[in-house]
Amino acid sequence: MKTGPIVLLTDFGLQDAYVGMMKGVIAGIAPQTPIIDLAHDLPRGDIQRGAYHLWQATPFFPESSAFVVVVDPGVGTPRRALGAAFPGFTCFAPDNGLLTYVCERCAPLKVVELTAPDYRIPNESATFHGRDIFAPAAAHLARGASLQDMGPPAAELTRLPLPSLSIDADATIRGQILFADTFGNLITSLGLLHTEGENLVLDPWLGACSSARLKRRDVRAQLPDGTQLAISRTFGDAGTGKPVAYVGSSGLLEIALNQGSAAEALGLSAGQEILLIRKG
Amino acid sequence: MKTGPIVLLTDFGLQDAYVGMMKGVIAGIAPQTPIIDLAHDLPRGDIQRGAYHLWQATPFFPESSAFVVVVDPGVGTPRRALGAAFPGFTCFAPDNGLLTYVCERCAPLKVVELTAPDYRIPNESATFHGRDIFAPAAAHLARGASLQDMGPPAAELTRLPLPSLSIDADATIRGQILFADTFGNLITSLGLLHTEGENLVLDPWLGACSSARLKRRDVRAQLPDGTQLAISRTFGDAGTGKPVAYVGSSGLLEIALNQGSAAEALGLSAGQEILLIRKG
Amino acid sequence: MKTGPIVLLTDFGLQDAYVGMMKGVIAGIAPQTPIIDLAHDLPRGDIQRGAYHLWQATPFFPESSAFVVVVDPGVGTPRRALGAAFPGFTCFAPDNGLLTYVCERCAPLKVVELTAPDYRIPNESATFHGRDIFAPAAAHLARGASLQDMGPPAAELTRLPLPSLSIDADATIRGQILFADTFGNLITSLGLLHTEGENLVLDPWLGACSSARLKRRDVRAQLPDGTQLAISRTFGDAGTGKPVAYVGSSGLLEIALNQGSAAEALGLSAGQEILLIRKG
Repeated sequence: MKTGPIVLLTDFGLQDAYVGMMKGVIAGIAPQTPIIDLAHDLPRGDIQRGAYHLWQATPFFPESSAFVVVVDPGVGTPRRALGAAFPGFTCFAPDNGLLTYVCERCAPLKVVELTAPDYRIPNESATFHGRDIFAPAAAHLARGASLQDMGPPAAELTRLPLPSLSIDADATIRGQILFADTFGNLITSLGLLHTEGENLVLDPWLGACSSARLKRRDVRAQLPDGTQLAISRTFGDAGTGKPVAYVGSSGLLEIALNQGSAAEALGLSAGQEILLIRKG
Repeated sequence: MKTGPIVLLTDFGLQDAYVGMMKGVIAGIAPQTPIIDLAHDLPRGDIQRGAYHLWQATPFFPESSAFVVVVDPGVGTPRRALGAAFPGFTCFAPDNGLLTYVCERCAPLKVVELTAPDYRIPNESATFHGRDIFAPAAAHLARGASLQDMGPPAAELTRLPLPSLSIDADATIRGQILFADTFGNLITSLGLLHTEGENLVLDPWLGACSSARLKRRDVRAQLPDGTQLAISRTFGDAGTGKPVAYVGSSGLLEIALNQGSAAEALGLSAGQEILLIRKG
Repeated sequence: MKTGPIVLLTDFGLQDAYVGMMKGVIAGIAPQTPIIDLAHDLPRGDIQRGAYHLWQATPFFPESSAFVVVVDPGVGTPRRALGAAFPGFTCFAPDNGLLTYVCERCAPLKVVELTAPDYRIPNESATFHGRDIFAPAAAHLARGASLQDMGPPAAELTRLPLPSLSIDADATIRGQILFADTFGNLITSLGLLHTEGENLVLDPWLGACSSARLKRRDVRAQLPDGTQLAISRTFGDAGTGKPVAYVGSSGLLEIALNQGSAAEALGLSAGQEILLIRKG
């Protein structure tokens, strides 16, 4: 039976053995299945960040990949443990909003609540469902088990509020900073953007507003202090230490500093508003 | 020949290429053997933490796993390099106490000193036995080599002092904080604990004291400042930002903060005393 | 077809999903090929550090390993994307100096500029060539593609300045600190060093100066403040908290503190001069 890798995304870090024990459980159930680390140093408890990285990463993984996503501050409370099948991949995650963005892009084919004792560690703990419920479920799936055997259908998943993205009557596009990545690059909600000839095209992600088509050379990204930046291709299009706006590798507008940290140098952080305006 | 994965536990971090080179050596000797990272960001030189994580993790790995554990401030001194076979798994580690807790749980079947030149890197360095001695030994084992060919029997292993755990005449159980994990959760020596009906049962780990059976609803964890906490199931049983005591995922009592860091908020750290007392 | 692992070396960290997406792309193209992390927490943008770790690690990996090295502040500018075949391994990296040290040790057999669309992600981004160009090229190579089909020959690679290493007329050997590793050990340019009987032999790496042969017991490492240290075998040859000089695991002289951080305790950092002198 052909299955893809099991992909792990957590906020557990590598200081403790939590991620490692999840891998041990998987190796015991499905020893032939490759395990891939998506990221483990997410800010602790940052569900939105987990939802974003899952949304961002799934298109780059092979058919039949299984994602185990554990940012789970409510572990052990009545929040449900979910298994969700999407076209081409499956996710295992607590029902706390982690699946919001992937569900917005494409409705799940099936969602179950992971309750069947056969697919979890016996005498599971109340505080480590990554090891005891989510990892074994993914491993059993890789070995050929069926999602529908793992528990009853689950409806009305918990949803995060979607990132802010809107278009004003005067065609100003309003977005916000989602987070700063490890380089200090500021990822914004302004997208999905791509270039068609001379135009910059907005196909709003997560269904937030209508599409828009802008002359690329006339568009400016406007920071909270009023600074306006042309839309460049890459960091190096600005001078060293200068800010630059560009369409990032996931199709969202990003603000960076060439050879530096935009988050530090510009003093900007998650939630602040960024505009796309027409020069004039 | 059926073998499990090679599991790596070090304090090397991922800033340098030390862990990567160990994997390169393993891939050269046993290319088919999966390599799993248990943890690499242990506090530098913290042997007790390494011993704990090894003890904690081994039950969750498949039969025939080989653990390579390198927290090794005494590398190159006369301290011995060990290979130790336990029922179901093997450990390779310096003789500095890293095996203390796994040995307490179950006596090793065989321990050798890794001296045979055939199972190490030629011209090994004096400062990187993880790459030159421990990783190749594990890889050769995975390829079918025998532990007893790797060197002479080794006796009288170096032992760490065991964590403090005792029961007073008045049935107060005295333990201590072992460390704070990456979430700021405080792991204590109070365990192994499990629930049987209305009782909380202590089966002391590492043979530290006698067993005890307590009415769960009458038990309180007492912090150094006198604060008493009921024994909850999970973080979310306390209000946001409130401290909570619960039986952690390895069977030890833990103190956490719901949605925060107990280590920071309570100002507690390794070595401080935590009590299990009867309410009244 | 026999191929080695794909080995990843980046400055991306594990806070974001960048490394994970590279692995997803590889798993989609070459699902049977093992992926090994060499290191990902390099100081951001530190090309010299990347060049060093690549140089340091390649000898410890099996035949036919493919190294994907991405420390790439100039991504998206006209800097070329390279594939370079060396005896026994292949490297994929931006043309920014990352290959300097491996090229000094051994000239590449063939270098191409990665331009062929068939071996990259369609509609590649301008800011993430690790995912879109370098990872897929390595994966296609592992599946049997030929480097020469990936683009035209590339000549005159970008070179970093080589680390300083020279011998004075009075036989004093002058080197410099390259960087401090995660333990605070100071790695210097003074090498390659090995012991032959009573002698310490210098076979200069990267062709920096002539060879030298010194009586080991007469040699001292001299720090910028004039402190002189004998050449020891390992950390533990010094008292706790005392500085120690020794030949490190890659053949370069290192300065460490037994049970501490030399970088912190001695206040030394990259670029400062370290001498090897004769006692007298």
